Amino acid sequence: MLNLLKQHRTFDGLTQFWSHESTSTKTKMKFSTFTPDGEVKGCLIWLSGLTCNEENFITKSGAQKYLSEHNLMVVAPDTSPRNLELPGEHDSYDFGSGAGFYLDAKTEGYCDHYNMYSYVVSELISLIEKKFDIENFSIFGHSMGGHGALIIGLKNSNLFRSISAFSPIVNPTDTDWGKKAFLGYLGSDEILWEQYDATKLIKSGFSHPCKLLIDQGASDDFLGKELFPEVFEKACVENGQAIELNLREGYDHSYYFISTFIEEHISFHSHYLGLQ
Amino acid sequence: MLNLLKQHRTFDGLTQFWSHESTSTKTKMKFSTFTPDGEVKGCLIWLSGLTCNEENFITKSGAQKYLSEHNLMVVAPDTSPRNLELPGEHDSYDFGSGAGFYLDAKTEGYCDHYNMYSYVVSELISLIEKKFDIENFSIFGHSMGGHGALIIGLKNSNLFRSISAFSPIVNPTDTDWGKKAFLGYLGSDEILWEQYDATKLIKSGFSHPCKLLIDQGASDDFLGKELFPEVFEKACVENGQAIELNLREGYDHSYYFISTFIEEHISFHSHYLGLQ
Repeated sequence: MLNLLKQHRTFDGLTQFWSHESTSTKTKMKFSTFTPDGEVKGCLIWLSGLTCNEENFITKSGAQKYLSEHNLMVVAPDTSPRNLELPGEHDSYDFGSGAGFYLDAKTEGYCDHYNMYSYVVSELISLIEKKFDIENFSIFGHSMGGHGALIIGLKNSNLFRSISAFSPIVNPTDTDWGKKAFLGYLGSDEILWEQYDATKLIKSGFSHPCKLLIDQGASDDFLGKELFPEVFEKACVENGQAIELNLREGYDHSYYFISTFIEEHISFHSHYLGLQ
Repeated sequence: MLNLLKQHRTFDGLTQFWSHESTSTKTKMKFSTFTPDGEVKGCLIWLSGLTCNEENFITKSGAQKYLSEHNLMVVAPDTSPRNLELPGEHDSYDFGSGAGFYLDAKTEGYCDHYNMYSYVVSELISLIEKKFDIENFSIFGHSMGGHGALIIGLKNSNLFRSISAFSPIVNPTDTDWGKKAFLGYLGSDEILWEQYDATKLIKSGFSHPCKLLIDQGASDDFLGKELFPEVFEKACVENGQAIELNLREGYDHSYYFISTFIEEHISFHSHYLGLQ
């Protein structure tokens, strides 16, 4: 059962905030939506980055204008379960609360709740299908959420018509953020880690029939430390996966960057969601 | 001396955050700016509402896209002095910090610092003129900041080429917010209050050569309690001041409303700032 928390009329549509009891996380989960007036031709799932919740995208991206123009809705879920007290859950910005990494956890305590992969792929999609009578989905996200969009989209290419990402973590098994998260959520079995690494997925044969779209700020402080889009691009090229990687001079990791190029991403998905 | 605190590339321009020691408030003040690349034909001063600071407008309004298209910059100052400990200053959301009401205070303690009228009209404009080599200004704002834009614009019609407002407090001497603020900042002399009431200013002969533009959400919870745009419209009509008041069905008091109509306000000011 979905509870409507608040709503605000925006660009000839409704920005809304929802909560529900999740079977995947066994907690109350929140998400935001924007639905334009009139017929909706599809839904974008937006996955947010570290430290974010269901509010960041819907307040800062400026997406509503373009969603309204393209007759698309968006759903932006929180980035982790909340209001738990698991060991180490609230000690750092890059693990635990606000940092669910869109996987299904295996470690003690976390395995009972940190199941954001199943939450997004099964539970959230099902809720949106029923509540908003939607059949067509695409997926995109930012940073940790760009990682989420890529792994979820590649592993469910029949469910998501198109995939894009801003500043995605494309190779978490080789970066500090990813190693910390995967060790904490999945344990030390690195074979398991590879199931949640977009570059490894491409190398092992996963693909999507549509071109992948990635935007990356060239002045992003995390570029070359946590973010290696060229590694992912190379894997795509070598494995026949179409990809467009745009390096944007001067732009950083913030929503100021996202807001500048969000129109292009919504147009990209609108094309694929409009195909019969 | 201006200190650049941070900057983010946005829509082919720069979103920047600044601080400086203010002579008007005798405190450190902060403001945000957006400046598009290339020649800038004018500057909009944005005044924010209760509880806001220099961040709300620049993160939530989506203005940068349209400012960039129109070759305009914007300046959004904080709404009060900060880091003081005056009596009652931090006790409520509608008085003291975050609630400067764009006046020059007369009451003990507040008169030394709460001089947001002089801060905007004299100090901030002068800073922007010098730092950004700008000659042409217009002014707009939201709620308490809509009040600020109207009173400052009407009292300085030679300085501001055009004035607009979202959901402005147009008649503060007759509303709870205004009475509380004016009593606290100005004392009990109601003749003094009238100098900061846009409706009273219009009735006493103040005017602006350009049409005033006001947008008001019809589902705004404060409409009919703190906001009476029809009272101001009537005063304008009776006194020969051109005004366009748009009541927007379904929209509320939030930045979701502002973001929906910000393009129209920027186009409005761009017209007047582009005239020779």
